[in-house]
Amino acid sequence: MSLIDKLQWRYATKKMDVTKSVPQAKVEQILEAIRLTASSSGLQPYEVLVVTNKAIREKIKAIAWDQTQIVDCSHLLVFAAWDTYTAERINTAFDMTEEIRNFKSEAGDIYRQKLLSGYPPRDAEINYNHAAKQAYIGLGTALIAAAYEEVDSTPMEGFDPAALDEILNLKAKGLRSVVMLPLGYRKADEDWLVNLKKVRKPKESFVTWVE
Amino acid sequence: MSLIDKLQWRYATKKMDVTKSVPQAKVEQILEAIRLTASSSGLQPYEVLVVTNKAIREKIKAIAWDQTQIVDCSHLLVFAAWDTYTAERINTAFDMTEEIRNFKSEAGDIYRQKLLSGYPPRDAEINYNHAAKQAYIGLGTALIAAAYEEVDSTPMEGFDPAALDEILNLKAKGLRSVVMLPLGYRKADEDWLVNLKKVRKPKESFVTWVE
Repeated sequence: MSLIDKLQWRYATKKMDVTKSVPQAKVEQILEAIRLTASSSGLQPYEVLVVTNKAIREKIKAIAWDQTQIVDCSHLLVFAAWDTYTAERINTAFDMTEEIRNFKSEAGDIYRQKLLSGYPPRDAEINYNHAAKQAYIGLGTALIAAAYEEVDSTPMEGFDPAALDEILNLKAKGLRSVVMLPLGYRKADEDWLVNLKKVRKPKESFVTWVE
Repeated sequence: MSLIDKLQWRYATKKMDVTKSVPQAKVEQILEAIRLTASSSGLQPYEVLVVTNKAIREKIKAIAWDQTQIVDCSHLLVFAAWDTYTAERINTAFDMTEEIRNFKSEAGDIYRQKLLSGYPPRDAEINYNHAAKQAYIGLGTALIAAAYEEVDSTPMEGFDPAALDEILNLKAKGLRSVVMLPLGYRKADEDWLVNLKKVRKPKESFVTWVE
C-alpha cells in the first residue's frame, strides 16, 4: 500500500477488539518512528507513556468520557509534554547533541544561548503549548506508523488533562498530558464508523497556491 | 525503504539546491497526505498555502532570519490555522460530513452542539492554539510524505508570524500562520548538517511503560 492508501485505510477506530493484542515488535516500531520524527530545535520536549495496566486504564476511561477504546486497545499511548522549558532541559539537549556528534561550534553556542535567553523566562503556559505542538508532530507520525503496521488507532483529546496527570503522576516529572492514542485492532462488526466514508475538505478549499 | 529508514534519511535540510524543482506530482502527493491525515473532530481547522512566487518568498525570507531554504526550495508550504472556532466553521464541517455520508444521527447532533456550545465562546487564543496543534499533525504527516517522495524538507518556526500573516494576507481569511515547510532538494556539498549524526533521546528516557 502507498502512503496515501495507508491514510485512506486508517480511521479513528470507535470499537476495538479486546481479545486482540498488538505484537510487541509493532509497538516498538511505532514508538521508534515517534522518537525519530522532527521537533523544534531537536529538543523533543515530550515523552510517551505506554499504558498496558488494566486497572490504570479503567481509571483513565472514567475521566475520558468512558471511551471504550481506552480499555479495549492493548496499548494506550499517552503523549506528555514538558510543563515548561528550563535551562537544565535545554542544556541537556544541547550537551547530548555535542557529545553524540563530537562537534562543538560557535553557531551552536549562539543558538543554545538564544534558546536559554528566550524560552525559560517566558510564561510556562506558552512554553507548554509550544512543547505540546511538538508532541502533535509525534502524534501525526504515530498515526502513519500505526497504519503502516496495520494497527488501528484513535487520537483522543477528550479527557480531563489534570485528572490524567494525577493518575499517571506526571506533575512530579514536570510533564502535562497532551493527547492519547490507543493502539489495537478494530472490531468492525461493532464499529459504527468503519464503513462510513472518510470526509475531508476538498483540495480547492484546503490548499491555496501563491504563484 | 521502511518507514524507519525514511525517518532516518530525512533531516532538517539547511542548504537546498536552487536549481532543482520538486515535480508537481510529488507536491500533490504530499498535499494529499496532509489533507487525509487526522484532526480533532475532523474539523481540519487549518489550510496550507503553497508559495512558489519568488518575490513573495524573498519577502518571507526577510522576516524569517534570512533562512536560505525559503528561496532555494521550489515550494514553500505555509500551514495557517483558523484564528478561532466560529459556529459557521463548525456547522460547515458537520454539514459537509452529513452530506458526504448521507447520514444524520442524534449522536452526531449532540456532538455538534457540544462543540458549538464549547468552542466559539472560548478565548480566541485558546481556539487558535488548538487549531494550530492540528496543523502540527499535518506537519508530522507532511514530513513523512516528503521523505516518501525522497523530497527534502525543513520545518521552520523561526519567523515573525504577524509579518507573515501580513505578507500572505491571512488575517482577511481568518487565518494565522503556524509553521512553514520548504520542499526541495539538499545541496549536500554546502550543507553543514547533512553528514552529522541524527541526535535523539535514547528510548529509555523517551518512553515509559506503565504495566
